[in-house]
Amino acid sequence: MAGIVHLINGPNLNLLGQRQPEIYGRETLEDVVRLCQSVAGELGLTLAAFQSNHEGALVDAIQAARGVAGGIVINPAAYTHTSVAILDALNAFGGRVIEVHLSNIHQREAFRHHSFVSARADAVIAGCGVQGYELALRRMARLLTG
Amino acid sequence: MAGIVHLINGPNLNLLGQRQPEIYGRETLEDVVRLCQSVAGELGLTLAAFQSNHEGALVDAIQAARGVAGGIVINPAAYTHTSVAILDALNAFGGRVIEVHLSNIHQREAFRHHSFVSARADAVIAGCGVQGYELALRRMARLLTG
Amino acid sequence: MAGIVHLINGPNLNLLGQRQPEIYGRETLEDVVRLCQSVAGELGLTLAAFQSNHEGALVDAIQAARGVAGGIVINPAAYTHTSVAILDALNAFGGRVIEVHLSNIHQREAFRHHSFVSARADAVIAGCGVQGYELALRRMARLLTG
Amino acid sequence: MAGIVHLINGPNLNLLGQRQPEIYGRETLEDVVRLCQSVAGELGLTLAAFQSNHEGALVDAIQAARGVAGGIVINPAAYTHTSVAILDALNAFGGRVIEVHLSNIHQREAFRHHSFVSARADAVIAGCGVQGYELALRRMARLLTG
Amino acid sequence: MAGIVHLINGPNLNLLGQRQPEIYGRETLEDVVRLCQSVAGELGLTLAAFQSNHEGALVDAIQAARGVAGGIVINPAAYTHTSVAILDALNAFGGRVIEVHLSNIHQREAFRHHSFVSARADAVIAGCGVQGYELALRRMARLLTG
Amino acid sequence: MAGIVHLINGPNLNLLGQRQPEIYGRETLEDVVRLCQSVAGELGLTLAAFQSNHEGALVDAIQAARGVAGGIVINPAAYTHTSVAILDALNAFGGRVIEVHLSNIHQREAFRHHSFVSARADAVIAGCGVQGYELALRRMARLLTG
Amino acid sequence: MAGIVHLINGPNLNLLGQRQPEIYGRETLEDVVRLCQSVAGELGLTLAAFQSNHEGALVDAIQAARGVAGGIVINPAAYTHTSVAILDALNAFGGRVIEVHLSNIHQREAFRHHSFVSARADAVIAGCGVQGYELALRRMARLLTG
Amino acid sequence: MAGIVHLINGPNLNLLGQRQPEIYGRETLEDVVRLCQSVAGELGLTLAAFQSNHEGALVDAIQAARGVAGGIVINPAAYTHTSVAILDALNAFGGRVIEVHLSNIHQREAFRHHSFVSARADAVIAGCGVQGYELALRRMARLLTG
Amino acid sequence: MAGIVHLINGPNLNLLGQRQPEIYGRETLEDVVRLCQSVAGELGLTLAAFQSNHEGALVDAIQAARGVAGGIVINPAAYTHTSVAILDALNAFGGRVIEVHLSNIHQREAFRHHSFVSARADAVIAGCGVQGYELALRRMARLLTG
Amino acid sequence: MAGIVHLINGPNLNLLGQRQPEIYGRETLEDVVRLCQSVAGELGLTLAAFQSNHEGALVDAIQAARGVAGGIVINPAAYTHTSVAILDALNAFGGRVIEVHLSNIHQREAFRHHSFVSARADAVIAGCGVQGYELALRRMARLLTG
Amino acid sequence: MAGIVHLINGPNLNLLGQRQPEIYGRETLEDVVRLCQSVAGELGLTLAAFQSNHEGALVDAIQAARGVAGGIVINPAAYTHTSVAILDALNAFGGRVIEVHLSNIHQREAFRHHSFVSARADAVIAGCGVQGYELALRRMARLLTG
Amino acid sequence: MAGIVHLINGPNLNLLGQRQPEIYGRETLEDVVRLCQSVAGELGLTLAAFQSNHEGALVDAIQAARGVAGGIVINPAAYTHTSVAILDALNAFGGRVIEVHLSNIHQREAFRHHSFVSARADAVIAGCGVQGYELALRRMARLLTG
Repeated sequence: MAGIVHLINGPNLNLLGQRQPEIYGRETLEDVVRLCQSVAGELGLTLAAFQSNHEGALVDAIQAARGVAGGIVINPAAYTHTSVAILDALNAFGGRVIEVHLSNIHQREAFRHHSFVSARADAVIAGCGVQGYELALRRMARLLTG
Repeated sequence: MAGIVHLINGPNLNLLGQRQPEIYGRETLEDVVRLCQSVAGELGLTLAAFQSNHEGALVDAIQAARGVAGGIVINPAAYTHTSVAILDALNAFGGRVIEVHLSNIHQREAFRHHSFVSARADAVIAGCGVQGYELALRRMARLLTG
Repeated sequence: MAGIVHLINGPNLNLLGQRQPEIYGRETLEDVVRLCQSVAGELGLTLAAFQSNHEGALVDAIQAARGVAGGIVINPAAYTHTSVAILDALNAFGGRVIEVHLSNIHQREAFRHHSFVSARADAVIAGCGVQGYELALRRMARLLTG
Repeated sequence: MAGIVHLINGPNLNLLGQRQPEIYGRETLEDVVRLCQSVAGELGLTLAAFQSNHEGALVDAIQAARGVAGGIVINPAAYTHTSVAILDALNAFGGRVIEVHLSNIHQREAFRHHSFVSARADAVIAGCGVQGYELALRRMARLLTG
Repeated sequence: MAGIVHLINGPNLNLLGQRQPEIYGRETLEDVVRLCQSVAGELGLTLAAFQSNHEGALVDAIQAARGVAGGIVINPAAYTHTSVAILDALNAFGGRVIEVHLSNIHQREAFRHHSFVSARADAVIAGCGVQGYELALRRMARLLTG
Repeated sequence: MAGIVHLINGPNLNLLGQRQPEIYGRETLEDVVRLCQSVAGELGLTLAAFQSNHEGALVDAIQAARGVAGGIVINPAAYTHTSVAILDALNAFGGRVIEVHLSNIHQREAFRHHSFVSARADAVIAGCGVQGYELALRRMARLLTG
Repeated sequence: MAGIVHLINGPNLNLLGQRQPEIYGRETLEDVVRLCQSVAGELGLTLAAFQSNHEGALVDAIQAARGVAGGIVINPAAYTHTSVAILDALNAFGGRVIEVHLSNIHQREAFRHHSFVSARADAVIAGCGVQGYELALRRMARLLTG
Repeated sequence: MAGIVHLINGPNLNLLGQRQPEIYGRETLEDVVRLCQSVAGELGLTLAAFQSNHEGALVDAIQAARGVAGGIVINPAAYTHTSVAILDALNAFGGRVIEVHLSNIHQREAFRHHSFVSARADAVIAGCGVQGYELALRRMARLLTG
Repeated sequence: MAGIVHLINGPNLNLLGQRQPEIYGRETLEDVVRLCQSVAGELGLTLAAFQSNHEGALVDAIQAARGVAGGIVINPAAYTHTSVAILDALNAFGGRVIEVHLSNIHQREAFRHHSFVSARADAVIAGCGVQGYELALRRMARLLTG
Repeated sequence: MAGIVHLINGPNLNLLGQRQPEIYGRETLEDVVRLCQSVAGELGLTLAAFQSNHEGALVDAIQAARGVAGGIVINPAAYTHTSVAILDALNAFGGRVIEVHLSNIHQREAFRHHSFVSARADAVIAGCGVQGYELALRRMARLLTG
Repeated sequence: MAGIVHLINGPNLNLLGQRQPEIYGRETLEDVVRLCQSVAGELGLTLAAFQSNHEGALVDAIQAARGVAGGIVINPAAYTHTSVAILDALNAFGGRVIEVHLSNIHQREAFRHHSFVSARADAVIAGCGVQGYELALRRMARLLTG
Repeated sequence: MAGIVHLINGPNLNLLGQRQPEIYGRETLEDVVRLCQSVAGELGLTLAAFQSNHEGALVDAIQAARGVAGGIVINPAAYTHTSVAILDALNAFGGRVIEVHLSNIHQREAFRHHSFVSARADAVIAGCGVQGYELALRRMARLLTG
């Protein structure tokens, strides 16, 4: 269980690579997942990926990781700022949690500066683009294998 | 219709008894529903129970109670603090509403102190643990049967 | 001591049944005390009741419950929103505390939404009218005889 | 694509005509869609209508309009005030957006005064009742056909 | 009953004429009461005066005016700004209420700008010194004898 | 000069008696001025009256009272809450100032609770209806003739 | 009277078409009035137009519509955010009121997000450019002729 | 008079030594008074001590010190944060005032960070435990004997 | 046009030299204009001066400078803090704007600390007394003649 | 180590006795240090004194006390209100900390009411003038020698 | 002493002319000092210039001006918004103070809108670029030589 | 230049490994620098490290990196929350900036939630402990070598 990591992506991230490529680059969510699979393999981790636009479905997915995964890497996207339900689900998860944001949310609109998830996350990585996922997995490997 | 009560539970309550049992006790959501069925029978009420992690599904459930149930006992959990949609659905429901919280939300984080639902509820019961559902049903029986 | 409960009512509640009966019903404070005595007897509890319009007298009464009562059921009325002294007195009381409000204070003026007492209370019951006292005693019995 | 408009309605609007008819009139959502179809035909527009109580389903619907519709007329209802996810989905949509509210939200509760969607909308029409949809389509026709 | 007016003065007003005479003049509370008795007589009113430094005692005095006096002229002094209990007592009183302040409280410290009592009072007279009591009685006579 | 008083009324007061007579009574601004002339005569004062809907015209009128009038009785109406210019003009006036409001502004919308003028006024009289002008003149006579 | 509409435009709108044409287009205030006259004629309405940079003059104009016009279409421009006097004048007007803004004020500086007028208006239309006047007249026709 | 000091303790301090001894130590209010008497004697001061749970009684006690005592050492306890009446009474007292708190109130709940009394006190000593009274008396001796 | 400067002074500045001469000195508005004319002549600028107590008249004056003057030196006085209309008029003016205040507004009441005009002004000069106008003209000459 | 106390004074305190002597008295920093040395000797403590106007130098001095001194008496002066760095340095110091202010900072400007240091200090003494240092040393002796 | 002026520049101003020349121009700090020396000579003033990136060093420099300089012209740069220590040092300086900012700080980020120094400065000049120093010296000459 | 990275650590980080090792681990600042040197070597970067407790010294160090380093990895520690001067210095630096915090500052005191530096940083990494430096260097290598 310690070596299993769930990668959970929130709303609108299924459009990655299609919207505002000058900002987010041309990599799609599939590219991200493939990258993460590759990095995970190199680090000796097993990765399962999930994406949804539905807050409830994300809560379901976090609950499903209980007793299964040792850690969750999550980019809650827009729900970062509004979802107490996701926070509660993460609180009910016993493993490690790393929060990732593609952009530096502190440089965007004021309502994106507050994250409910940061109060629970072991670490937060923002503004590293797609590479942020890789960095999160490297940190997760350290946390899970000590 | 007056004697029918819908019991609606929000996100993460399906984990009851599994997370933080030292706080919430070891009773599961199934135990809660069984307890409520028993109390309802004793009070001459008919009870239908529903739980979901999805905000929209809870809105659907509240709408479905229109013209069917005389009252709703609801624990909106995390959506208590963020959902205007649930408030609007309750506003469109003509019967009685009692809001229940297992813990005393006034002793938790600041963002849990405000409830959108309280502006609509006939009564609020917080911090009585699972017994809170029983007390809510006793109050509901009084309201429905005068 | 565990079976002794003090019922403490705050300012203007001596007018119960006389002011705004269309809202609060026609039951007087005497009726409330009689009801509580009856419910307490049924639950195996001993009840002592007190009311005052004076903040200091309520502080005295809470102090007097120390080492005597196992629990306090309190409706602080207007002092709910302004009295740190009552909060401090309750903090110095070692037993259980349940806060009761006849109306749903969350539906009234903004300055009635905050309660100093809720930070100390084990449970809060609001908007159940006079029945709220009965429900509070049922919860108290469970807490004291648990 | 320029002539295609998606009409998207948010939570509880499926109850239109059934709740508070003295405020919202007796027209149902079906009547609204029929009216919009008729106005759209007269203006040379093609209209597709969608309603859901689920935030995630509305996000899906907005995404589905990408590359298909030239404009979206949206009444986000309660999600107006709480959904950053819908705002993000609209930000990823390249066409025109007009926000409609049946009532004048500025005359209702304070939490209904702020709209996340207004920061993205080309125009906002509030308080015109069902006619607001017609006016929005007239404006949309002008925007799409120059 | 219509012709009976209770004059109620709050904390520290028993020091009138002794503290800061350069501001408040040299008239004592006894002088004020004598002046009010004289004006009341001229206007055909009967006046009863009361002063206390205790919030609870003022609540008692307001309650005692129920069914007895047609109006209350009150200078709540420092309790103006902190007492919800006095407001509740006045809400339970059926007659007319006029609030008097010797100084213009809007020119003093910020915490003196808000009055709980003003939400209940029929009129407010501030900054007229001792003459303010006379003006309040003239207004009260008009209200009671219409 | 000591015996001369300027009565200045602000925007929309020219509609007095025509709008919301159930609240403000049926007396018109002409009635108010006639009443004030009569009271002033009885008190040995000379009265000049002015009304305008224009902020600048009211500033002009206050400036015109400099060196001419011993006191100003002013009801700034809506400009009470927004005009620093009127405050500055009153600060440049050397005589006495009494602020009058027909209704108790503390019982109306929040934006009507703050008055720029109160920081300058010698006295404030609110909620006495048209009689408030009479009371203000009585106070002014006392101030001007000692 | 029902068919008469007053079109009232606030400060700086006399510069329309001359300032920032890339934003507001090249149509002048005269063009707007001509357009409105044409639309009004088509809808069976009679239109009278007025513009001023003076807050008091706008209050006068709103008062002049009392008993004359059935509705007012108003773009208060900068006074939207600062004038309680215009709000009071509209409150004294018995007919319908529709508030128009050329741009979407919710996308501009924070001090332009609050409108005193919206609390009184039957409808608000923002961000439709000059067409917003046409849409407002269409809505007004519906309101006046039922 | 210069050498007389009144020691005034507020609500719940009569419980000193009995509640939370791990924080406040095991010394009772009697011990504190005895200690203060001893220190006062050594410093050539005469000390009179008073404690009450009633806000009004504390106001009375402060008034009673007028013309009698040269200084007041006061621990207003919970009334520190809510009582304007005590502040007004102290403002009417001509001598020196030193405010004492057993704990460092800046390290406790936010509502304990503001003191009405500090605006009047010559000095504030917080977080020195019972020794704080001794330090206050040493300061008072310096102030009174210069 | 580049060498033409309009000097615009707001409400109550016509009283300069007459009110509070110990603060503002004994120079009148006429003296200020004469000084500015002299400095402007020395700098090769043409100066036109205007003063009004009316917000609308100041808006008119700013509009009149469009296409005529290269720069505006403005002391908006009390309207500094309340007028969005003046800000909008300045936004529609294409030339340079320098804001002048006789006193250091940051040392006066809190409501005088915020200036709507500063968001548009090229420079702000406060607290230099009448000399501030001279300094503003020196800066304006540099801006206009590069 | 237990008997060693570091006395640390912050910015502008090197001017003591030279600025505003009517407030702070005529004693210089040298006098203060000499007084503290004398009191320390009497109490059996060893004292080392340091002053700097540089935030970083004060951080260095606090760090230098680690493992050397049993307690720090600090008057952070202006850095009280702005320095998180000093707070962090004190958090890394294992001994006792007493915060001293010459004046009662609660009676000065609002930005002086908050102290970052108070969250760490064992005790706070304000408003006792130079004697405050002596009182702090007496408290420190008690803390260090138990 | 009256004719001596200290010119003090804060952090990052040593980079003047090197960073963002399109905004600040190409003049370096050396150019600014040379310009100020020249203007000072022409005005009969003696000028000494100092710059540092260290808050403490700036405090030292202001203290060093005590009894030496008649005035200080200061551009505190970033410390404008955060340094109470610089304010205190200026408060201990007996001469004149003029605050200069190259840019109009009111048009930049919100945290740059508040200046601690403005509460002490005799005048503030912002947005005049390097010429601002010249204008400040002209004002200083007037202040020092009357 | 592209391959040169400056590692800048702020106040109290020289104590790393000595304070609260249960939180921050036992690695010292020397260990961190050695680790960073090693990682930098592996990534083909040249690293220069600097630490100071002085805000001004950190500003100097950032200025010294101009034209020398391609990027700065900075842990501003306590100055994160208070230093506009460091932000300005970073704004004058042309290269890449990555902000590192050992702990997750969003889980600490409220005043640690805001970072002035984040508005400038390309990326922010918080809560990864000492490993955060390694991750920052990996990101920096990617940024510099593209």
